[in-house]
Amino acid sequence: MQRHFDQELLDLKEKILRMGILVEEQVQGALRALIERDSDLARKIIANDRQVNALDVEVDEDCLRLLALQQPAARDLRFITTAMKISTELERVSDLAENICERALELNEEPQLKPYIDIPRMANWSLRMVKEALDAFVNHDADLARKVCTDDDFVDDLTHQLFRELLSFMLENPQTITRAIRITFISKYLERIADHATNVAELVVYMVEGKIIRHTMS
Amino acid sequence: MQRHFDQELLDLKEKILRMGILVEEQVQGALRALIERDSDLARKIIANDRQVNALDVEVDEDCLRLLALQQPAARDLRFITTAMKISTELERVSDLAENICERALELNEEPQLKPYIDIPRMANWSLRMVKEALDAFVNHDADLARKVCTDDDFVDDLTHQLFRELLSFMLENPQTITRAIRITFISKYLERIADHATNVAELVVYMVEGKIIRHTMS
Repeated sequence: MQRHFDQELLDLKEKILRMGILVEEQVQGALRALIERDSDLARKIIANDRQVNALDVEVDEDCLRLLALQQPAARDLRFITTAMKISTELERVSDLAENICERALELNEEPQLKPYIDIPRMANWSLRMVKEALDAFVNHDADLARKVCTDDDFVDDLTHQLFRELLSFMLENPQTITRAIRITFISKYLERIADHATNVAELVVYMVEGKIIRHTMS
Repeated sequence: MQRHFDQELLDLKEKILRMGILVEEQVQGALRALIERDSDLARKIIANDRQVNALDVEVDEDCLRLLALQQPAARDLRFITTAMKISTELERVSDLAENICERALELNEEPQLKPYIDIPRMANWSLRMVKEALDAFVNHDADLARKVCTDDDFVDDLTHQLFRELLSFMLENPQTITRAIRITFISKYLERIADHATNVAELVVYMVEGKIIRHTMS
């Protein structure tokens, strides 16, 4: 019984990682659609979102089943409820990849405003945070999780920097306003991806140490 | 034992409602700070956010304790995991109230751009959605929850309408750009509050009917 349960916990861990990889591919695809101005790819990424949603539903059902049948205690209980919550966070990251694609489709209808420099940097940074937060989850690594929480500041700084740059574009030439605002939205989506990574990391610290750090570190 | 457990479930329900009221007050306060250009109030609302955070932590701990000690099945199990997730959604709504206050503080440093008409409408509509989603939760009312999910479209429409209006401001007079963008951000925050209400409503349908409707209705 216990061995079977341990296997189910491993399966759950594996499913969360699979979901993480899929979500990462969604965000990377969205960025590629934006940078290469590839509307077909943007539409494909939007359609792919349902795969992430399906995994989210699966994780939820797996967790409920484990809670009902195994009635786990302490460490396992926290692992399962954390997995449920992480799945929600990942699903929201995928929604943001979809939002990036929606803005990319709009941006593709006009000439490119400027080469993208900060946006890919923000995306890479945010994705690394997501990846590290998931690594922290599967390895019960609270130190790595704490590092992710502090990484969030860098993304916020980049968002502000990019906003100031776009603002100067808009002031100089009102023709750029619509495009500049759409790019601002994209930077906000990336900022929110980093926020979700931070949420995951905070959940992991709680799972490992039984200590709630969310609401205290920001 | 069962009677004691029933009482604990009632306490949990009551705590979620209390959190809902607090979050509603936060959003209403943020709107008042914006409309009345009251920076002191904005700072007070930002400081109050910690009360919501404290309740979120409490709900989480209550739920984990109930899961560990009572090992509930079926209906009660779903009720408890749903409460955990709803608490997270409400906490995020309160974060958005804080974001509105941050933008209000920035807007208060410049003359008012225009009278607020759509913003209070969006706020009222979004808050009603949150309230109804919580009513649906405590009354196990899947019909009301489904209604909340469809209400979301109205907020999206208002956001687009307001964005077009602000865009024409910016095009006519670039001096308005910074303010118009801050107001656009506020409308996005209100849209996200409606999204959180929709998330809660979808969770309630699942709790009542055991059917996952999220990812299918949008």
